[in-house]
Amino acid sequence: MRFHASTISRVSHFRNRAPFSCQASAKPHSNHKQGCNFGIAFDIDGVILRGRVPIGGSPQALRRLYGDSGELSVPYLFLTNGGGVPETKRAKELSELLGVNIMASQVVQGHSPFRNLLKKFENELIIATGKGDPALVMSEYGFKKVLSLEEFASYFENIDPVSQYKKWTTMPLSNRKAPSVPRYDVSSERVMAAFVVSDPVDWGRDIQVLCDVLRSGGLPGDANSYQPPLYFAADDLEYQAAFPSKRLGMGAFRIALESVFNRTSPKSLEYVTYGKPNPFVFKNAEIILSQLRSSCQNHSENNEVPGSQPFKTLYMIGDNPSVDVKGAQQAGHPWFSILTRTGVFRGKDNHTEFPADLVVDSVEEAVDYILKREC
Amino acid sequence: MRFHASTISRVSHFRNRAPFSCQASAKPHSNHKQGCNFGIAFDIDGVILRGRVPIGGSPQALRRLYGDSGELSVPYLFLTNGGGVPETKRAKELSELLGVNIMASQVVQGHSPFRNLLKKFENELIIATGKGDPALVMSEYGFKKVLSLEEFASYFENIDPVSQYKKWTTMPLSNRKAPSVPRYDVSSERVMAAFVVSDPVDWGRDIQVLCDVLRSGGLPGDANSYQPPLYFAADDLEYQAAFPSKRLGMGAFRIALESVFNRTSPKSLEYVTYGKPNPFVFKNAEIILSQLRSSCQNHSENNEVPGSQPFKTLYMIGDNPSVDVKGAQQAGHPWFSILTRTGVFRGKDNHTEFPADLVVDSVEEAVDYILKREC
Repeated sequence: MRFHASTISRVSHFRNRAPFSCQASAKPHSNHKQGCNFGIAFDIDGVILRGRVPIGGSPQALRRLYGDSGELSVPYLFLTNGGGVPETKRAKELSELLGVNIMASQVVQGHSPFRNLLKKFENELIIATGKGDPALVMSEYGFKKVLSLEEFASYFENIDPVSQYKKWTTMPLSNRKAPSVPRYDVSSERVMAAFVVSDPVDWGRDIQVLCDVLRSGGLPGDANSYQPPLYFAADDLEYQAAFPSKRLGMGAFRIALESVFNRTSPKSLEYVTYGKPNPFVFKNAEIILSQLRSSCQNHSENNEVPGSQPFKTLYMIGDNPSVDVKGAQQAGHPWFSILTRTGVFRGKDNHTEFPADLVVDSVEEAVDYILKREC
Repeated sequence: MRFHASTISRVSHFRNRAPFSCQASAKPHSNHKQGCNFGIAFDIDGVILRGRVPIGGSPQALRRLYGDSGELSVPYLFLTNGGGVPETKRAKELSELLGVNIMASQVVQGHSPFRNLLKKFENELIIATGKGDPALVMSEYGFKKVLSLEEFASYFENIDPVSQYKKWTTMPLSNRKAPSVPRYDVSSERVMAAFVVSDPVDWGRDIQVLCDVLRSGGLPGDANSYQPPLYFAADDLEYQAAFPSKRLGMGAFRIALESVFNRTSPKSLEYVTYGKPNPFVFKNAEIILSQLRSSCQNHSENNEVPGSQPFKTLYMIGDNPSVDVKGAQQAGHPWFSILTRTGVFRGKDNHTEFPADLVVDSVEEAVDYILKREC
């Protein structure tokens, strides 16, 4: 993964002051003396938030990772398979919900690795789907010719046979108006790749249009058996949202699309999935955490740990054994997995198939354990 | 199948006059002398209509089946896997689009057999989904406690994790307002059966809610592994609509639901599918056609064919080899299959896997062949 350049630039505007000072008691005192040789990656859904509501004492837990004057004292980031909005916007939302000053560089979403495909598709026609604003996400990564699947579909009359029963749009209000003049001649220009950026909203339409695009070499209706590349930001079968029981995730959509595609096409669907538990996601998180650590050290009084020294421990705090714990296990040293009981996992003891290094009730308990152990 | 009682009553209001007289030349003259010992079943999508547009000379073809004074001279009906509206309403729509007076008894939709499950679920809580007005369809069949899946879902906050991205409803305008007071206590009353009445509009929500209902014994969130019965009105993988290439049908939705359910549940999904090519659909069509024939004979001057005499030939005119032709073949005598090139099938010669008894370009050519052969 080649995140280095982008992460450096994204860390540059780090010295924003936190909106408040941490309580002295919450500050990891000894930490500044020895510098940070550990870091933390937090899953969001089911660990930090349920829907838009903070859970498990997450605001208090995060405040303990900042110094008196609001500077970051422990390098941490959010490592989520969710997404649908640019990292800058998501960081702003999280700052508001959690009461700490979170930077875009601390938000790694499922689709963040898509920016690494820029060289391949920067000037090609691509389509993006999922909740939120998938086309904006891809545009901010630098893709120049991206259409949301919804806008793409609007160029093909009757492509969705039940659209007449939908008095709605999945487009964000910002760009809900139908394009007056097509920006691209999609009736003759092939779609070179399709991206599932976040959880799809309109499964039926998306499965139909993706089948049309992927069975025709990128030009619906054309007799071309080439399948353009298909990328999924994540592959979670289920995840914990606001509803008491787990909800179907992007992995469930992938299964639905794949099963329908394979029954209606002579070839099997080919695709690439990103997101946890892929080990490269954890490798990338380690790189970003080192960037954050050097920033910490820049304003730490005395520092005995050179920025180049590898982390002694990196903590992955998650709620999903098959995603967070499995991912940390596959990534190996220096990852240490902590499983909370606030989301997908609700067991009394450890998970049997993917046992975590530590099981706790909440993220607050997890941070308390880490700070006691490290400081 | 026990259609007899219902079909008799549905044929009773037969003597409505057609909106115009047929041209004398189009009338099957000799037909009245010998009475009708044949009947015709027409598929709708891809044979009679594409979207809402008549195709293949269907209006002219149908007019030839009426006498000078607009009375039915050849017993015929529509045998479609489509649906979503009550047969009475569909008959009115077809009459307007095709310019002949079509009775509800001549419209057999995919969900028509659901009325035969009345004894089992008449007073039980059931849910129905699909385009159009699935709850109204089931209510008109006599089911007393039916909720559309959309209304059912509205009782469970956050059951659809992406609902916030949908500025819409699949409910028809008639009953679009959210129920102020739940008609049933769905938080404690189990759903006893789920019906997919017509092509689902919101696949994601329907797959999520059906998984919730079917994995919990009919009470989302409950720890009950019993799966309530699930019924599909049809199982078409694809069908011909207004878009040039085939669109995904109810069978594709069933595959998507089944693949996701089987990955998230310890048991495999159990379900019953109706619609063509099920032989009982053709048996039922034969019963209704006999009802229509006796009505023909009631106002035919002289008739040498007792109503009880079996049909010599029943013609199935369809566009889908694996649905219409296969169905007629499985039903056997007296069914004779005619395949048109106006829909799913576009081949020059006959279909290889399910060869029809006759292949023609259009429904007009099919009716011309039948009348020449029979009269």
